[in-house]
Amino acid sequence: MRLDNARLAPMANAIRALSMDAVEAANSGHPGMPMGMADVATVLWTEYLKHDPAAPKWADRDRFVLSAGHGSMLIYSLLHLSGYAAPTLEDIRNFRQLGSPCAGHPENFLLDGVECTTGPLGQGLAMAVGMAMAERHLNAVFGDPLVDHRTWVIAGDGCLMEGINHEAIGLAGHLKLGRLNVLWDDNRITIDGSTDLSTSEDIEARYRATGWYTVRCDGHDFEDIRRALDEATADPRPTLVACRTVIGKGAPNKQGTSATHGSPLGKDEVGAARVALGWEHPAFEIPADILADWRKAGERSAEAHRAWQDSLASHSEKAEFERRMAGDLPAGFSLRAHIDSLLDAPQKVATRKASEMALAALNPLLPETIGGSADLTGSNNTRAGGIGPLTSEDYSGRYVYYGIREFGMAAAMNGMALHGGVIPYGGTFLVFTDYCRPAIRLSALQESRVIYVMTHDSIGLGEDGPTHQPIEHVQSLRMMPNLLVMRPADAVETAECWEIALREKTRPTVLALSRQNLPQVRTQADSNASAKGAYRLKAAKAERKAILIATGSEVSLALDCAAQLEGKGIGADVVSMVCTQLFDEQPETYRADLLPDVAPEQILRVSIEAGTTFGWDRYTMTNGLRFGIDRFGASAPAERLYEKFGLTADAIVPQILSKLNG
Amino acid sequence: MRLDNARLAPMANAIRALSMDAVEAANSGHPGMPMGMADVATVLWTEYLKHDPAAPKWADRDRFVLSAGHGSMLIYSLLHLSGYAAPTLEDIRNFRQLGSPCAGHPENFLLDGVECTTGPLGQGLAMAVGMAMAERHLNAVFGDPLVDHRTWVIAGDGCLMEGINHEAIGLAGHLKLGRLNVLWDDNRITIDGSTDLSTSEDIEARYRATGWYTVRCDGHDFEDIRRALDEATADPRPTLVACRTVIGKGAPNKQGTSATHGSPLGKDEVGAARVALGWEHPAFEIPADILADWRKAGERSAEAHRAWQDSLASHSEKAEFERRMAGDLPAGFSLRAHIDSLLDAPQKVATRKASEMALAALNPLLPETIGGSADLTGSNNTRAGGIGPLTSEDYSGRYVYYGIREFGMAAAMNGMALHGGVIPYGGTFLVFTDYCRPAIRLSALQESRVIYVMTHDSIGLGEDGPTHQPIEHVQSLRMMPNLLVMRPADAVETAECWEIALREKTRPTVLALSRQNLPQVRTQADSNASAKGAYRLKAAKAERKAILIATGSEVSLALDCAAQLEGKGIGADVVSMVCTQLFDEQPETYRADLLPDVAPEQILRVSIEAGTTFGWDRYTMTNGLRFGIDRFGASAPAERLYEKFGLTADAIVPQILSKLNG
Repeated sequence: MRLDNARLAPMANAIRALSMDAVEAANSGHPGMPMGMADVATVLWTEYLKHDPAAPKWADRDRFVLSAGHGSMLIYSLLHLSGYAAPTLEDIRNFRQLGSPCAGHPENFLLDGVECTTGPLGQGLAMAVGMAMAERHLNAVFGDPLVDHRTWVIAGDGCLMEGINHEAIGLAGHLKLGRLNVLWDDNRITIDGSTDLSTSEDIEARYRATGWYTVRCDGHDFEDIRRALDEATADPRPTLVACRTVIGKGAPNKQGTSATHGSPLGKDEVGAARVALGWEHPAFEIPADILADWRKAGERSAEAHRAWQDSLASHSEKAEFERRMAGDLPAGFSLRAHIDSLLDAPQKVATRKASEMALAALNPLLPETIGGSADLTGSNNTRAGGIGPLTSEDYSGRYVYYGIREFGMAAAMNGMALHGGVIPYGGTFLVFTDYCRPAIRLSALQESRVIYVMTHDSIGLGEDGPTHQPIEHVQSLRMMPNLLVMRPADAVETAECWEIALREKTRPTVLALSRQNLPQVRTQADSNASAKGAYRLKAAKAERKAILIATGSEVSLALDCAAQLEGKGIGADVVSMVCTQLFDEQPETYRADLLPDVAPEQILRVSIEAGTTFGWDRYTMTNGLRFGIDRFGASAPAERLYEKFGLTADAIVPQILSKLNG
Repeated sequence: MRLDNARLAPMANAIRALSMDAVEAANSGHPGMPMGMADVATVLWTEYLKHDPAAPKWADRDRFVLSAGHGSMLIYSLLHLSGYAAPTLEDIRNFRQLGSPCAGHPENFLLDGVECTTGPLGQGLAMAVGMAMAERHLNAVFGDPLVDHRTWVIAGDGCLMEGINHEAIGLAGHLKLGRLNVLWDDNRITIDGSTDLSTSEDIEARYRATGWYTVRCDGHDFEDIRRALDEATADPRPTLVACRTVIGKGAPNKQGTSATHGSPLGKDEVGAARVALGWEHPAFEIPADILADWRKAGERSAEAHRAWQDSLASHSEKAEFERRMAGDLPAGFSLRAHIDSLLDAPQKVATRKASEMALAALNPLLPETIGGSADLTGSNNTRAGGIGPLTSEDYSGRYVYYGIREFGMAAAMNGMALHGGVIPYGGTFLVFTDYCRPAIRLSALQESRVIYVMTHDSIGLGEDGPTHQPIEHVQSLRMMPNLLVMRPADAVETAECWEIALREKTRPTVLALSRQNLPQVRTQADSNASAKGAYRLKAAKAERKAILIATGSEVSLALDCAAQLEGKGIGADVVSMVCTQLFDEQPETYRADLLPDVAPEQILRVSIEAGTTFGWDRYTMTNGLRFGIDRFGASAPAERLYEKFGLTADAIVPQILSKLNG
């Protein structure tokens, strides 16, 4: 369907009007980008984008990502005009107000059609790479009739300056993701002013150097936009479409300047824009004929959707496809047999190795997993279970060599999880959660099931020294909302954690895993003890005077301490605190049973974790004892470091005794 | 000085031997890179690098950055062979052992000649960009006779895949840092195997697209290396020298494979390498003639150093240059007059605005500051005090438009601080400390004075919503060792914080500043109250039953709560907790005076901070009350959000009363 240009122009102006009016009403927001990209977006959404506003979750829809998320009024306008049930005009009137789905930045959990949460620059583009990876993978598995769609991105200069875009386009170019098209809002303006202030790059040349096709167009010339999009879709490479635009196009006195970027235009300029655009209609009113053209365009793919439904109905793998897209695990999925084998033959292994063993068990049961590592495959132990590489020659593979791109990996995993049909997991060293942190936060905010396999989780990694030794990381991740941080103590807990993480459909998980070997402390596993976040691994034998709370590699240390205490007639529980967040969610009765609220003179609570002690007061109470490391680590063999930092039974037990006797 | 190639070859082999032997002795480490880059490094250090091993702190030395820090034995070998006092051969024998300055990765605080701590990939290169910026700036200020040196980097494929390198080279290309030369160890191998597994990029084309000159050489052909380095130094642009090398060169059975990257070669292969290299000497023994050649090369720039000292001695700005390079503030520096003006005319301003006011006062007093922002100048309020832009046309400017490169900015600031002679500060939104976090950690680890101006520090930013609203950030930064996190409550505290941050020569500071206006709560400022980390802003009038501990924008809220409580006859102190780290360092008497250790029935401690409550138990004690936000924020005007999240006096006071009565 191609409307003639005379009818497209007012459709684009409808975006401009809604955007400037909504920002004006909110007295806050970003009119410049929606007004500048209105023409490009109108052509894309009315002539190229495959979507069905009546069925926004259609699995084979094109994915559209507004990477320049501050221009949120662009996507709210597009969704409303195209006929999505939300946002309504009322929602748009309440742009940026409490309770409106039209939030300051687009939030995937508030609106269908918002495929991912954007605003932190560069990450939308990087998530789109993950979506395009998931698309090609599922296409390879289920075939063209079920999966055959494109991923479109609108990105600004900010997205293309952020480091993450380098990692993302490197991955996309290498994997030859030809169905990914990035429309660059090339308006030569950033918040501080002209792009000349801060960059001199030939962006197209850079993209070409990374395996992309590039094409340029006048972003205010409908024919030229079509030509560029035709070229983009025809070329087998991922494409960057440089759309030369005027930021704030239509605001006669401010367009082309950073003044339109992030502030309301002001009443006078909005009035002047109405005149300049020939848009005589009151605020928030869209004339019926223009709305009708938009709605008709919105129905463009309805027939394709029906045909797709027919294909699905008759497809031999219909049930499996639907299961995967729903994010459900296969009926009866369990790691029971693997855990039983550990109970039968206990293993003294690093938990990273235990994770590999769990993967060897679960990957054959879960065809939807896609693993990977940021160039630490042998260290993160992430490739197991007979999965082969996902490459440009074979997208059906299930292991991604992400290269040295931790942030790019994390963002791509977000995109994969949000696309649906796959469960991504990926590894690097735990200390490099810092490199991925903006994407981990978006995993949590977007409620996406991404599993981070973070190994080398403490000074226990030894010689690599302070740059590689997490100190604050585990604890600092625990305070991120909606993120589960798990630090298993042995092979059994590691398997339990994997099972919990896989079953969490709306929460990401960080697995903190040891480099060093750990004894198997669990000899029973009737149920998933880790699922309660913490549990009593060992009960006091003598009268209980202490509760030792430990995580991961320090659980066996706590057991050693408890044994010494018991030898002196002092009863000590050992609690394995696998996941503080899950523990905090348990009923009061359960928590009080593990950690009874009595005075420390009666029962002393002690925490042991090879990381910061900050925050452990929450579980030890103020008068408890906290053993950990509140400085940077050092380079030495692991055992020497545990001695240096006082994390040995010989160093800890006397302090407990002293406190008990004090 | 050019030795003939027959004498260079054994000098390079000395690096190979030390590297493989040290890794073998430690049974851990990375022999591949030092062996692969030994030839390039030998040419660089003996013929190009301007340095004086007898005076490693010579201000005008070239800076050498081993961005691929895992190859640490390369720099340890170079330092030892060239004649630096450390590391000794004994230090090298103890590579990666507790107490040896030859740590797993190079640490700037352990060895002179190690200009920065590297290991987290890409950041060495990005810090080198900052060093090169500082060099050009100081050159513009003090002239060629005092400042005229190069910055050299050895980087691996990992460094060039990391997103940070994109930001760094964009900045370097834009600023035309022609005295920066990056030697890329182009060995086509990463940990996971061939670079073909994860990348298809034409790296040189990408660098050229970003304003760099590129040249290629055979990294094992001394003549070709010289040709390339001559081209690099002749070209006015920053240069990437692609050195085609064989990883692990010299190990006959393993070279060219990832097996040499991160593991000892093993006894047999080390023996085979000795034969292949014609290196018959025992482990850790360097023949006298080879060592003599190295030491002679190390004296190459001694004469230049003496001439430079003469220049300095007769330079009109000798004292000022020495002051700046020593990192000392000008005698008598103080913000007293500015603070007095605030006491005279109290200001209700956002603390970001208060920071601008402080900058307007301090920048004229401190010519060594170099400010900037990652494209949020008007929001971060970072340009003040009459400083002009630092550009390729005028390096004497003191304000950097970093572009949308938060991580690149932070890393560049580390490099500037480590170079010396300047005090860098830079801004972005506090939530984007996540983007900078790996560099913030290196600021702390490297003990570098970098001041992070992080604005929009809570839900108080309002409409931009959860992607932009810090929740866990302030608290999670507080647990990073050696980092000061300050959250001032008003204009006076903001000025005090700036003064503290500037005086901290070995600690970086994060200033968390509000977007919204805050009343001035301080009416007295006889001394810098913030310097103690926390202080009693208001003492109870009625009998003290509560201590309200608050930070930043919540201090005025705490005052409101206290007023309501006093109205009911309940005495309440208000403590402004500006910086928990500084408070924790105060003497017990001071801390106990502010927060007396009595039962909560007697005095209830309450924390109020618009962020996570996790960790506040440390100051409220277990039975205290903690007000904050333990979920993601939302998009709405700030006042609505404070209501929604229960951070109002009307919501808080009843809970305090209930607890006191409970």
